[in-house]
This record gives sequence, C-alpha cells and structure tokens, in this order.
Amino acid sequence: MQPCELSFSEASAALKAGKLSPVELTDSCLARLEAVQPTLAPFAHVTADAARRAAKAAEKEIAAGRWRGPLHGIPLGIKDIYDTGGVPSTSSSQVRAGRVPERDAVVVARLRQAGAVLLGQTHTHEFAYGGVTPTTHNPWNPARIVGGSSGGSAAAIAAGVCTIATGTDTAGSIRIPSAFCGTVGLKSTYGRVSRRGVTPLAWSLDHAGALTRNVGDSAAVLQVIAGYDAEDPASVDLPVPDYGATLDAGVKGLRIGVPENYYFDHVAEDVAAAVRKAIDVLRDAGALTRAVAIPYPDQILGTEWAIMMAEASAYHQESLRASAPLYQPDVRALLRVGEFILATDYIKALRVRQRMRKAWEALLADVDVVIAPTMPITAPAPDTQTITWPDGTEELIVMTLTRFTCQADLTGLPTMSLPAGFDRDGLPIGMQIIGRAFDEQTVLRAGRSFEKATDSVGRIAAP
Amino acid sequence: MQPCELSFSEASAALKAGKLSPVELTDSCLARLEAVQPTLAPFAHVTADAARRAAKAAEKEIAAGRWRGPLHGIPLGIKDIYDTGGVPSTSSSQVRAGRVPERDAVVVARLRQAGAVLLGQTHTHEFAYGGVTPTTHNPWNPARIVGGSSGGSAAAIAAGVCTIATGTDTAGSIRIPSAFCGTVGLKSTYGRVSRRGVTPLAWSLDHAGALTRNVGDSAAVLQVIAGYDAEDPASVDLPVPDYGATLDAGVKGLRIGVPENYYFDHVAEDVAAAVRKAIDVLRDAGALTRAVAIPYPDQILGTEWAIMMAEASAYHQESLRASAPLYQPDVRALLRVGEFILATDYIKALRVRQRMRKAWEALLADVDVVIAPTMPITAPAPDTQTITWPDGTEELIVMTLTRFTCQADLTGLPTMSLPAGFDRDGLPIGMQIIGRAFDEQTVLRAGRSFEKATDSVGRIAAP
Repeated sequence: MQPCELSFSEASAALKAGKLSPVELTDSCLARLEAVQPTLAPFAHVTADAARRAAKAAEKEIAAGRWRGPLHGIPLGIKDIYDTGGVPSTSSSQVRAGRVPERDAVVVARLRQAGAVLLGQTHTHEFAYGGVTPTTHNPWNPARIVGGSSGGSAAAIAAGVCTIATGTDTAGSIRIPSAFCGTVGLKSTYGRVSRRGVTPLAWSLDHAGALTRNVGDSAAVLQVIAGYDAEDPASVDLPVPDYGATLDAGVKGLRIGVPENYYFDHVAEDVAAAVRKAIDVLRDAGALTRAVAIPYPDQILGTEWAIMMAEASAYHQESLRASAPLYQPDVRALLRVGEFILATDYIKALRVRQRMRKAWEALLADVDVVIAPTMPITAPAPDTQTITWPDGTEELIVMTLTRFTCQADLTGLPTMSLPAGFDRDGLPIGMQIIGRAFDEQTVLRAGRSFEKATDSVGRIAAP
Repeated sequence: MQPCELSFSEASAALKAGKLSPVELTDSCLARLEAVQPTLAPFAHVTADAARRAAKAAEKEIAAGRWRGPLHGIPLGIKDIYDTGGVPSTSSSQVRAGRVPERDAVVVARLRQAGAVLLGQTHTHEFAYGGVTPTTHNPWNPARIVGGSSGGSAAAIAAGVCTIATGTDTAGSIRIPSAFCGTVGLKSTYGRVSRRGVTPLAWSLDHAGALTRNVGDSAAVLQVIAGYDAEDPASVDLPVPDYGATLDAGVKGLRIGVPENYYFDHVAEDVAAAVRKAIDVLRDAGALTRAVAIPYPDQILGTEWAIMMAEASAYHQESLRASAPLYQPDVRALLRVGEFILATDYIKALRVRQRMRKAWEALLADVDVVIAPTMPITAPAPDTQTITWPDGTEELIVMTLTRFTCQADLTGLPTMSLPAGFDRDGLPIGMQIIGRAFDEQTVLRAGRSFEKATDSVGRIAAP
C-alpha cells in the first residue's frame, strides 16, 4: 500500500507518531497525481514545489514536538473557486486566466494554519456554474462524468491522490460529485463556514465545505474550517462544537425521516434500492424510521433556479459584457438568460424559500434527520442531454443533477452525501443525510454509524 | 383645557390616580375628533362605541386596583395599514373596501393588552405607498399636506385628538408626517417591532412604530410594542431594555455627528437654520459635535427606490391584475413600473445596501448619533409636483419627501423625528436623530434632552 492510500486517520496518526514523514506522504500523493492527471485531470494547477516545502516544514515542526493537530502534514486539494495566495486561482475559466490572488480565502488560510499541505487547485465546472466539470473524468469509469461543480476535488479523492479537498455547494456542487465519485461531501449549515475569498456563484445559496474519503475526515476538516467571520455577511456567530466528541455515539433512538414523496420519484432502480438498504442498516443499528412528506415539491427546482440564475447574472454582468467570448457556451447562456429574470419573480422565489424553511423546521421537529438519494442516477456519460424515465418522462440532465440536492441549499440545512454502494455497472451510489440547522453533529453521527456498518465508504477506485 | 389636550404623561398619571376617568378622556378625544374630522379627516374609520366600551372596562379595572401600566385608558389611533380585529382595515384603499380582519396585528394586540383605548383607523396614503396622504389635511394649515404615509396618525396627534397613534416607515412614512405636523415619530431598528398583521409595502424595508406628541410618550409606547416575534422573519430576538430608565440621563459627553454632505444640501433656509440651532441647544446641554461624511450619497435614493418598487410590485402583482381600476392612479403607476425592474438590478441594490450598512456601522463607531433635517422642506401644498432650489435644480416632490428619510430604512438604524421649531409661515420643522442598531435608548435620551430645553415639542395646532 502506498502512503497516499492510507486513510486520513491512519495517515494522521502515523504523522503524529513520527512513523510517517509528511514529505514521504506528499511525494506519494504527488506521484499518484502525476499518474492520474493525464487521464482524469482532477487538478487545474499543481503546486508540487510549494507542497514539498510545506511538507518539509511540517516534518520539522512535528519532529520538534509542535504538532498542530490532525491536519498537520496532510496533503489536500483546493477547489479552483477558492483564492489561494500566490497560486493561479481561476475558477477553471479563461476569463480569469493568469489571475493570482495575493491573499488566501478564509478556509484556505485556516487549513494552512492547521498545517495542511496544499497540492494545488482542483478543477471546477467553470465558475461553479454546472454539474459536469467537463475537464475531468470519473476514476471509477473515465467514460463517465465526475459531476460538478467540485468535480476535481471528488476525482482527486476517489483516485487516491488525497483524502480531503475543498468544495462549494450552491445547488449541490459538493454532493453531486461526491455521489458520482463515491466520496463523502458535507454541505454544512448556511453561515457555518466563511465564503470570504471564494468567487460567488449565488451569494444567498453559496456554501463552502469539503469533500473527504471518510465521515471521520469530514468531522476533522469541519472542525478546522467552521466558525464566525464578520466579513462574510451570511456568517453566523455561534460556537463551534467538538464534532469528534459525538461522532461515535451511534444512532440508537435516532428518528430518521423517510420521504414518501419527491425523493424516490424518478430514481434509478439500483439507487433507490441502495438507499433503502442503507436506511435498513441504520435501523438495524437502533434508529427509528418514520415516513415524512417533503413540502412544496413542485416549487423546489423553480425557486432554486430563479434565485441562482438571477444572483449569478448580477455578479457576472460587467464581466460578461467585457469578456463574453471567454466564457464557455453553457455558462454564457445561463448568465445571459438570468439577466431577463424580473425582480418580482426573484422576490417571489425568496418568499417561497422562506416558507420552505418554516416547513422544514416543522418537519425536523418530528424527526432528527431525513435520508434520501443524493442523485436520481449514477454518473452519466458526458454527452447525456436528457434522462428518459420508465414512465416516458423526459428530463433535462441539469435538472436531474440538481433535483435532489438544491433543496438543502434553499433551506441552508446541513446535508452530507456519502457512498451507499455501487450500481450494476460498478458506479458509486450516493445517499444524503439532511439535518437541523447547525446540527452537523447528528448528521455526522448518523453517517459515521453507517460507515462503520458497511464497506462502501472510504474506497478508492483502482488506479 | 380639555382632557384630550393633556399630555400623555399628565393623562396617564391622572388616570392611574383615579383623578381622571378613561371614559371622560375618551369622550373628550371623540369630541375633538368629531370637531376636526370634517376639515382635517385624520381618521378612515372611527370606532366610537367600541372605544367607549373599552374606556368603561379600563375605568373598572383601574378602580379595582388592576392598573396595567402607563397606556391603561389612553385613547389612540391605529394606522389603517394595521389589521384591527373586527374593524374595517383597508389600507385606505378601494381594493380592500369592506375588509374586516378577524385578528389584531401584533402591535395592536400588544397595545390593547396594555389597556389602550382604540379610537379607530387613521388614514394612510393608499397601501402606505406615498408621502402625501391626500385624504387628510394639515392641522397647522389645512391648505398644506400632512405628509405620508402615516398622515392620519400625525394629523390626529397634531390636532389634539390623541397623544399616540401607530405608523409604519418604509421610505420615511413615520417621519415625513411627523416633520410636517410637528409630532414625534420613532422608527426603531429593523427587527425591533413585529410587522405581523401589517400589510407589507416592501418587506425588507418595512418598519412598524408609533407617532406621539412627546419623546416620553415615544419611550412608553415603544416599551409596549417592542419585542421578538418568531412569526415575523425579520424580527430579532434581543431583550427589550427599560427605555424609561435612561430617558432623562442627559447628553453630557454625547458625540453628535453633524453631516458635512448630503443632509444640508438643497434644504430650505429655515429648516437648515432650525436644525443647526437644535444641535447648538444639545451642545449647550453638554453634547459634543463632530463633522461626519455620509457614505454613498449618490446611491441612497436609487437603492431605496429599486428595492421598494420591486418588493411592492411583487406583493401587489396578483391584486393589481384583478383590481387595477380600484388603485389610485399614483400607486397604480408605481406598481406597474416596479414590475419592469430586473432581478439583477434588485440584487445589485441589495449589495449596495449591505455596503451602506457597513459604512454606517463604521461611522457610528466615532459618534453616538447623527442629527439631520427630517425633510428638506416644510409641508407643501397638495398640488406641488416639483421643488425648484435656488441653484435652479428642479426636484420631483416624491424625491424631496424621501431623500433624507430613506437612508435609515435601508440601514435599519433607529431614527426619531421631532419638532425643531417653525418656519416663517408657522409650519413645523422636523429634525431626525439617527442612532446605532438597537440603541433606541440613546436616540430617545438625546430627543428628551432637546425636548426639555425647548418649547417646540409637544405643541398642538389651534383647533
């Protein structure tokens, strides 16, 4: 086994004990990266020299007894939508080619401060505005998409390059690629993690977070990146609990809401079966289940897209005037269409969102979490335009990709996608656990319980 | 002197001591109302019988030793934009003719609970969407407007009908009529007073509050209506301080910001002089003054109007389709124009507002309050379309009326308008005191200090 194949907790323990050098680990990760980059292209920009220097520094600090914590010496990837000081940070867009910010995004600075070793910038769907990440290929089957927009981060983890990489989630961008690549992706509560230094897609829906190989990694990295930031208008000033303390408390008595509408409509057979089986696994571990009705099912997609498109078009308006030809055709089209949305429609969407939040608050008074498929399908081929369901319904792929994830962006509720097995073609299946606002602890605890009971979490694709 | 001419604190003390009956006071108020209603028309709907019943009940309770507090037995008016259970509540609009809500707005319920005697609904500019209140005439000169949109409330107080009446403020609707009618109007911090049961004009700018004859009344009524309401999405869960406790603490050492731009540009000579003189009065009482620069002066009106028009048009859209002919021409025109505002423009306005809030936060780190004229002019004639300034600038009246007040709606900062004297035509002049978020105490304390040093506050127009 190569050092890069160690799980985060194994590597972290070995680094702390001095049994593994951060330099050795980093070299192993960079070697794996070099091996997979030509076929899978998870990275937009690799900073090998800086990574080796950071690893060297971590080695010295740990040897000198100045261990900073679980992330010290751990190599990781940064989604290219985050600013990394001194490194090209381009949102995978020609519009920002050559852009090198001076300062780190808050999340990047926190990770660096925790001793993490940055391997470089991972590919995003341009400006995080899409669910495909066309530059990058799926480690489980390079003929399938990785999903987006945090596709590079998911591919890097699934290919065994690193155990942690950052992501952002506006309509599902952490969870879509997590589901398609078999990684764990946690979109924490809106306001829990600072977005300062992250290029906005839609400010009232944008969440920063991380993708990881395991649920435990997810708790460890959230511990580092969570916290108040007065400079992010959405940031909420609430204490950050010790996520590790409750992680292994199990699910005895946990009330799981199982959707009786929406989340099991138009879902691939293998996906529905895997998620229902995962719920059974948790029930066997002591959880209780209860059927729940998802509120406003017919308004979810329209509300999400009206808000996202209007806000994205507002942010890019001047840039689109100046540099239209540099945008990719799909993003350019979305930005142009978004300019025609009326303020009255946007405001009505905000009001529906407000009602949804109330309804979810009521729903989550009766259950502790809701569990549902993350995606209706497993990773499709890149040329897929529509999905045709057995009842003849044809669905635009972009709607298939966001249909199940965007609800948690509208409500802001913490939601984790984790691998729930594989379909008949050997492609990963994702399930998501939705919890109460600022109750990431319960979401992580439920995920951890599932992880311990199965072998579907934490696997990497054969190179 | 008639009982209705007593100040709130005199009446309240006499009621508590049993020296004045609530019935006697209410009858006196109703008699004054009957006398002025034909010429000034402050009320849209008078509930004389219900008022007499409530006064009778208050009389019994007080006699039995069950005194509820300073508002017990005090007659007051409710702006017609508030729902009053069992009473026609029509927003002074034909669109809502005959509408009788079942339940009280939260503010109305709180006032009733405190023992107040409701005299009826006071006129508003239709749906609070205008600064004129064309139905109603100014008690200081019936040939002038009262201002709006809480024009009926201001007229009722200035005419001596009552000492307290509710108002709402989205672009200045509490403070505009307060300035024109010589009353005190407090728009407290956004989120301090519940708007539940108040017909929205623009939900992200709407504030509920009260107009009063004195600063002391203002503190007493805020004490009753302030507080958290989980059903108003904007409501903030912060404790309500004892406003009376600090009211008379004086202004020694208080740092007053005097605007060096914006608030003294294009202002009537008498208005500017009166406000500067009022600042001198406070300096004589121990306050310090410091010049301050108002941020984003060129963006204030555009930001306000973009947000207000878009939100108002979103709220009224279906109703306008169904009942366009029932709207007044001015309101109908604004609602129609607002439908053309693009979401991108609205979103940009929200972002400018966010920057303004930050800039005001910084400004109010250096001073405790900012003092400025409430209106650039005193009450104009109803047919005034434009104001021409000495340098030749022509200004649309609706911009003149909102130019100085709307900033505090955008920032949400607590702001009180109070009478600072009279112009050469005997019309009241208003000045406003702007304070820090949720620091109504300092605003009230400064206003009270001024009130004690002059005779311009608390006067009523000769009947």
